[in-house]
Amino acid sequence: MKRFVSARCRIALLGFGTVGSAVARRLASSSDFHLTHILDRRAAVKRGLLTAPGVVWTTRIEDVLESDADVVVEAIGGLDPAAGWIRAALLAGKSVVTANKQVMARHGAVLRPLAARQGRQLRFEAAVGGAMPIVRAIADGLAGDRIVSVEAILNGTTNAVLSRMESRGWSMKEALADARTLGLAEADPSADLDGSDAAAKLAILCALAFGLRVDPTQVDVRSSAGVTARDLARARATGATIRQLARAAFDRSTSSLTARVGPVTVPAGSIFAATIGPRNAAIITGEHSGDTVICGTGAGGDATAVAILSDLAAIACDRAAVVPAPVLSSDFTIGTLSLAEAV
Amino acid sequence: MKRFVSARCRIALLGFGTVGSAVARRLASSSDFHLTHILDRRAAVKRGLLTAPGVVWTTRIEDVLESDADVVVEAIGGLDPAAGWIRAALLAGKSVVTANKQVMARHGAVLRPLAARQGRQLRFEAAVGGAMPIVRAIADGLAGDRIVSVEAILNGTTNAVLSRMESRGWSMKEALADARTLGLAEADPSADLDGSDAAAKLAILCALAFGLRVDPTQVDVRSSAGVTARDLARARATGATIRQLARAAFDRSTSSLTARVGPVTVPAGSIFAATIGPRNAAIITGEHSGDTVICGTGAGGDATAVAILSDLAAIACDRAAVVPAPVLSSDFTIGTLSLAEAV
Repeated sequence: MKRFVSARCRIALLGFGTVGSAVARRLASSSDFHLTHILDRRAAVKRGLLTAPGVVWTTRIEDVLESDADVVVEAIGGLDPAAGWIRAALLAGKSVVTANKQVMARHGAVLRPLAARQGRQLRFEAAVGGAMPIVRAIADGLAGDRIVSVEAILNGTTNAVLSRMESRGWSMKEALADARTLGLAEADPSADLDGSDAAAKLAILCALAFGLRVDPTQVDVRSSAGVTARDLARARATGATIRQLARAAFDRSTSSLTARVGPVTVPAGSIFAATIGPRNAAIITGEHSGDTVICGTGAGGDATAVAILSDLAAIACDRAAVVPAPVLSSDFTIGTLSLAEAV
Repeated sequence: MKRFVSARCRIALLGFGTVGSAVARRLASSSDFHLTHILDRRAAVKRGLLTAPGVVWTTRIEDVLESDADVVVEAIGGLDPAAGWIRAALLAGKSVVTANKQVMARHGAVLRPLAARQGRQLRFEAAVGGAMPIVRAIADGLAGDRIVSVEAILNGTTNAVLSRMESRGWSMKEALADARTLGLAEADPSADLDGSDAAAKLAILCALAFGLRVDPTQVDVRSSAGVTARDLARARATGATIRQLARAAFDRSTSSLTARVGPVTVPAGSIFAATIGPRNAAIITGEHSGDTVICGTGAGGDATAVAILSDLAAIACDRAAVVPAPVLSSDFTIGTLSLAEAV
């Protein structure tokens, strides 16, 4: 679409892994954005992997914080040092785009008000659902409704494994080996299968949908690692299949939240059963809008890069977010958690 | 979600029909928004229909333009006087939210740059897809990708009729009578069935997805009014059904756009076949993100009001869009079309 961007937005990228390198390639060929810095632990080795004249490669976060970059893209993952760096970037007056579900699940309640106070944007579409724009759908597209529940497949790896077991009659071990060959599963897929990855994403969606701060470790999680070919055959015999579902429902009359992740039997005709391979899907139910369904590519560097580039486009259109902000001198604390303590 | 809205946004509403009255009820009970004016041709009669102390009812657009309203919500529909009033509201320094597909399809290419030049927002999620946030999904959520094609059910009435013919074996006449009873079809549903409603919506999506200005009358449209129970039975025999689909694909290498609306045979297992009743569905295909699917309630005052309220929430969060703007003194002309001539 034709956007009304005033000036080229200057971007510093943290992390040159699967997602970071996909973002860097897109930025290097973009005329709307100017990639100024890439920070990576192995900058010396990786700098040969990208043709982008003028980009400063560094291992020091200070080089980014003291630079004239307007936006910092965080694609290193994990809590530490990512959470502290995001906070430092906001304090330095930069907007931030992150793909980091752990940081947003744990520290979103502190970082989002900090960004607002700084007059900066903190965007995290890539933290949930890959290219599927579920963060916007909930926080923005359905902001005019009261959301009652969210039910979703949020882990592409587990979905690829379960749907492969279903279609081939394979054991989990066989399906996992296959997913690894296809680049759909890490060497250690335990955070995917045990549900903790989906729980972090669900916690983020609870903050957006219900305005609730949910500790991801308090989500009721059951592992999908024990699902067998026989379980799937039994489900099929009843006209169903099995998917790892993340489900959250908020009853405003009693202020009670239910948040669960685990293997669930879903009807064969349902949108979840139709979600095959490393895709994500969600049903968002609103008081006035009924069910809104969204499905998309849930994993992979290119798909995640789309979410990050989309966040960058939104920031580039927000003139208020790319002019110099005041730098807060003191630590910013909200509620019971100071991020300065937490990270 | 907890939004960081600074002050209560003042809203003037144009039109108190199905959509307008649903919006007014939501606004009257909202603490984030302040409904200041309602303009309706029959203001004298309708003022008894809403309990909202302090709201000014009027029949004169000048009362709205000269007021201190920050945002004008246009829910009157049709080209005239809606297009001229939207333009006048932007020139008066107000942001605008509209549900008007005709105006956005015909004059979006003029009105959107005018809004940008005025430093105001012009939002139109409600013009396409009811509560299904497809405008955001394309213009914002997938802004970081290059969109290749959009394929969608965009007319809830026609979909309700065709899916009812399918499930009951009814003739179109019977299904239409049923849809009217359920409030899903107007007395004259010809713009729904003949495809011109979907063509206007598709033209809007082409502008967002491909940056192209498409005259809705140039979309290749075939009517669905002639679809018979026998056509549906024949489709079913081949494992398929029939839906009114709007399809646009843009080949950037040859700069060629294909844009079509008409009845299409779709496989029984597809997302379109699964779209039953007055719902909408879309598959947006991007170069990097693959297929993103979005489905939702495609019609009705409450669902459309969600889209409008969501647009209002987005404007309320944009501080730059609710401070006084300069009023342009001369007509604003772009390209070949001046809206001053056009309306």
